[in-house]
Amino acid sequence: MEADNEAFFSNREQLNMEDYCIFKYYFETPFDPEETAAHLCRETSTALWKRVDVEEDFRGVHGAKVISLKRLGTTREPGLEAPHAKGDVYNQVEVEIAHPHINFGPKIPNLMTTACGEGAFFTPGINSIKLLDIEFPETYLKEFEGPKFGVAGIRKIIEVYDRPFVTGVVKPNIGLKPKDFAELAYKAYLGGIDATKDDEMLSDVSYSSTKERVGEVVNLMHKAEDRTGEKKIFIANITDEVDRIMELHDIVTENGGNGVMLNAMTVGLSASRMLAKRTKVPMFSHFDFIAPYTRHPCFGLTTQVVTKLQRLSGFDGIIMPGLGDRMNTTPQEVRENVDICLSEWSSIRKSLPIPGGSDWAGSMLPMYNAFGTVDFSMVPGRGVFGHPMGPEGGARSIRQAWEAIERNIPIEKYAETHVELRQAIEAFGKK
Amino acid sequence: MEADNEAFFSNREQLNMEDYCIFKYYFETPFDPEETAAHLCRETSTALWKRVDVEEDFRGVHGAKVISLKRLGTTREPGLEAPHAKGDVYNQVEVEIAHPHINFGPKIPNLMTTACGEGAFFTPGINSIKLLDIEFPETYLKEFEGPKFGVAGIRKIIEVYDRPFVTGVVKPNIGLKPKDFAELAYKAYLGGIDATKDDEMLSDVSYSSTKERVGEVVNLMHKAEDRTGEKKIFIANITDEVDRIMELHDIVTENGGNGVMLNAMTVGLSASRMLAKRTKVPMFSHFDFIAPYTRHPCFGLTTQVVTKLQRLSGFDGIIMPGLGDRMNTTPQEVRENVDICLSEWSSIRKSLPIPGGSDWAGSMLPMYNAFGTVDFSMVPGRGVFGHPMGPEGGARSIRQAWEAIERNIPIEKYAETHVELRQAIEAFGKK
Repeated sequence: MEADNEAFFSNREQLNMEDYCIFKYYFETPFDPEETAAHLCRETSTALWKRVDVEEDFRGVHGAKVISLKRLGTTREPGLEAPHAKGDVYNQVEVEIAHPHINFGPKIPNLMTTACGEGAFFTPGINSIKLLDIEFPETYLKEFEGPKFGVAGIRKIIEVYDRPFVTGVVKPNIGLKPKDFAELAYKAYLGGIDATKDDEMLSDVSYSSTKERVGEVVNLMHKAEDRTGEKKIFIANITDEVDRIMELHDIVTENGGNGVMLNAMTVGLSASRMLAKRTKVPMFSHFDFIAPYTRHPCFGLTTQVVTKLQRLSGFDGIIMPGLGDRMNTTPQEVRENVDICLSEWSSIRKSLPIPGGSDWAGSMLPMYNAFGTVDFSMVPGRGVFGHPMGPEGGARSIRQAWEAIERNIPIEKYAETHVELRQAIEAFGKK
Repeated sequence: MEADNEAFFSNREQLNMEDYCIFKYYFETPFDPEETAAHLCRETSTALWKRVDVEEDFRGVHGAKVISLKRLGTTREPGLEAPHAKGDVYNQVEVEIAHPHINFGPKIPNLMTTACGEGAFFTPGINSIKLLDIEFPETYLKEFEGPKFGVAGIRKIIEVYDRPFVTGVVKPNIGLKPKDFAELAYKAYLGGIDATKDDEMLSDVSYSSTKERVGEVVNLMHKAEDRTGEKKIFIANITDEVDRIMELHDIVTENGGNGVMLNAMTVGLSASRMLAKRTKVPMFSHFDFIAPYTRHPCFGLTTQVVTKLQRLSGFDGIIMPGLGDRMNTTPQEVRENVDICLSEWSSIRKSLPIPGGSDWAGSMLPMYNAFGTVDFSMVPGRGVFGHPMGPEGGARSIRQAWEAIERNIPIEKYAETHVELRQAIEAFGKK
């Protein structure tokens, strides 16, 4: 090993781990794994660790350090080609790097610049690289507010404690006049849906202002609450330019809306954290722009990292790519994301996991089985609003699916006596 | 073709193009290209275009429309595998989709959700997809402020009109005390550098606050201006949580700093636009998090799209991955990004292109030749601050490289009589 590189290795025993965040990466390199891991540390921290004419060394305090390195194997086909790192055989490596957070502080953008910025993705000798996980010390987590409501806060609003939530995305997603939109939401509420929400494509637009839409929905939501004896939520998508999201939040709450959504990846996690500090209602995220940087199996970030950063940023509910081929996920990935929302984590409240993707009544059991908890929400669109009997029947079909689970009856059997469930199976279950 | 899909095709003659932004995609599919392109339009606009019991059709006003489709060829090896779109042969397709901007408005997050959100990246049947370009109509561009200073504004501050700029990234990038940092910047100013800047990793940190660092640098910057008779800029990296960037901007300007930088991808383009509306000094971007979603050849976005969005968001200068293997770019890609900064574009001012990547004196000629203009800035770090004679010699070596170009003398020849250039070639030119 080059002598200069030795300073970039250490271990958990030698370091005061409260001073470090741990970045876990997978990478591929045609070169020596240890030397390349040291380069990764240099590029992400002190590339030049002294001035030309001065005796000094910034690596002690500011240098990132490899604290574990696993050689996983080799491959002849790199995950992604890079002109500066070509070879016949590529080493597949997993490293944990302890990075001193004095370099970036408890700030989402600066954390991300460090963990997945130029340093990591332009390190010479590295071909493919994927940020798998970030671990935070207690000291660092204490600087974050986290969700203001969390799972418990959302349950308190809905007054439902023993089953998963059902959140319906009103469809048609765009084009509806506020009155028509509200009418559809109303029917879904009557059918037993807990929350309705705007699609991620619908925001404060010229043909349906947030103010008017929230007003119309809230009126009918209260009417539905009276008729059903159930509490309901309306989640308005307030995705907009950052200098308008606080104003839109206030428009929503002043007009009786009791939930807001941000397209978290395009608005930005830091802007989301800014809003979270002053929300009066639960704040939900939509994953909109997540695929371009998480889809590749050995390049970019994992969705698990993104979920963790969203909980840190204060989202009370996190809509994430859910189960199913269309969402390009594995069941394990979705389960891990659900667990990241719900696990104990310093004093940071739990986020409600909302795995989405073409959900309908028949998705309830697979989701419940996969997650092993009632602390999640489904987020059907077409499965409610495209139901042959309309949104009321669609919502009812999903509540029936849960009743079948509670009574331990197969849904096909339960459908024999429940027409909405039967029609759901006929419309959505045969694909 | 399915009858439902015909409504998702049109052409430039039939549409009022002022109502549409054009998204250009490359995609791969094992299925029929036309049907799949129609699905892409549905998923990014009106997936369900009518209510269940109502006679209506939102596709006319709100539907995205394919206005051109090219079959480029076929491949047996898809760029990225997708569980829902498998086949033996994949069609490679390029489409232009006209999307009515009534759906999202002149707002960066909503635009991005539409062009590269869930719709585009989770369309059934599509395997790999890359957003290649976005074209905006005049009506839409008019809603954007763009850069406040632009290339002309930056030239006016530096009072240099006939050569490229040289911006030095002070190195060691992290760990320096403010006084030591300023001392290095001072030497680089004396050697002839136009601007110095913080590394993207250095921001308002506990060991070097923005306030103190700017104060120290500005004092010495003025001293260097007096000694050299040249005007100088200091660009402070104010990357931080979004609710602090305006405060940090004010700290910079109140202390005499005359440039600010944001790590645009982690702070977010919309937060950047928010800041751009109230800057008093030129605003620069760093590309930090760009690689995860632009590197893959047929998945994600092109860097050209990102550059365009940055100019739209108001960046006066755009630091981008520059020439060279290490930056994983092609010369054509970098050239196109430079052109996107400098081309005439409605009333939106030009952004200064700043292609970066291990620049030193020897990079000047290849950059000048590649871009065919003096309207760019180099952004050396090590090439100035790692120079054997220190930053003053490093800065001088780069100005000498430009003198050689002006006098049409090869740099090796010019180096015979210029020791700083000679030492630069010896230190950086042999790799």
